[in-house]
Amino acid sequence: MDYYGSQINKLIEKLAMLPGIGQKSAQRLAFHVIHMPEDSVKELSEALIDARQNVHYCKECCTLTDQDVCPICRSEARDHRTIMVVETTRDLAAYEKTGKYNGVYHVLQGAISPILGIGPADIRLKELLTRLQGDVDEVIIATNNSLEGETTAMYISKLVKPTGIKVSRIASGVPVGGDLEYVDEVTLLRALEGRTEL
Amino acid sequence: MDYYGSQINKLIEKLAMLPGIGQKSAQRLAFHVIHMPEDSVKELSEALIDARQNVHYCKECCTLTDQDVCPICRSEARDHRTIMVVETTRDLAAYEKTGKYNGVYHVLQGAISPILGIGPADIRLKELLTRLQGDVDEVIIATNNSLEGETTAMYISKLVKPTGIKVSRIASGVPVGGDLEYVDEVTLLRALEGRTEL
Repeated sequence: MDYYGSQINKLIEKLAMLPGIGQKSAQRLAFHVIHMPEDSVKELSEALIDARQNVHYCKECCTLTDQDVCPICRSEARDHRTIMVVETTRDLAAYEKTGKYNGVYHVLQGAISPILGIGPADIRLKELLTRLQGDVDEVIIATNNSLEGETTAMYISKLVKPTGIKVSRIASGVPVGGDLEYVDEVTLLRALEGRTEL
Repeated sequence: MDYYGSQINKLIEKLAMLPGIGQKSAQRLAFHVIHMPEDSVKELSEALIDARQNVHYCKECCTLTDQDVCPICRSEARDHRTIMVVETTRDLAAYEKTGKYNGVYHVLQGAISPILGIGPADIRLKELLTRLQGDVDEVIIATNNSLEGETTAMYISKLVKPTGIKVSRIASGVPVGGDLEYVDEVTLLRALEGRTEL
């Protein structure tokens, strides 16, 4: 029986389509929305539409932004000769939070994945190559430490090397605060291989 | 630095205000929304507004509904002489899912909580008393098994008893499939007190 009524059911259904939100959470959210001030619901509703309609890829680095060129690419305080290549805008955000990286980024918007049928032409590699024709000292590859990320890193390093530009890969090893006991073997071996002299 | 751009930040901020959605989930949801088909975003956005604007309390049982009187209260197949009192529409939904309860409901939209300053006048008790002036055989109290729920149950039973209508409380005990080992002592004692002869 339709004990909620169609309007509530519709909202629950739409919310449950979002990632990480199951039927129970969708119900909880829907009931929360019904009790929210009407203005707040309008603001949320508009923020959804605005973000979807006005956000696109930065012309320079392909990150998601609501401007033509993103604030990082426009900043004169950043070192535009160092480009860190990441898979997503969220990865960019993770490095920005450290506050220690002063170069710029290139966001691939994905990674090469033969299994998912994602090839080099499906990610923002062409745009990266175009940028490398300018003045660039180093390309730091910071794709994920996964099969796809590693494949992408290898592919990019092969593309960049002939240009003579330095290519590097972020280190792989035991996370800070990580207990050796709970770290998987592959990571332990990576950490051993990547050891640095003290 | 504002590396996301204001439109994305605004959406993240609005999403993070929802219950159970932290900063990280809000980010993930926002990026999902940006990649959703524009029509789906519009539908979600409209569902939010529609639910907020058109959902109100059923004139009979005070559940949330988008009609004047909810489908359960309108149904002739239900036994209108048995009223189950619950705290929220979600509790009603939980009992409806069992498919075995054929009476109607009364949704208090809360519970008495001296700590939170919620008194008997703040929940839908007046509406329940009005209903009891009609033909009612039994009031089944199914408020939560919490301090607030128990307080509310006691309060209601004292109100209903003088009317001569039968009042009952749903059983409290070990959940089905529950391992005694992991059940708290209060529940174990409740289960013992409430034992039934075989």
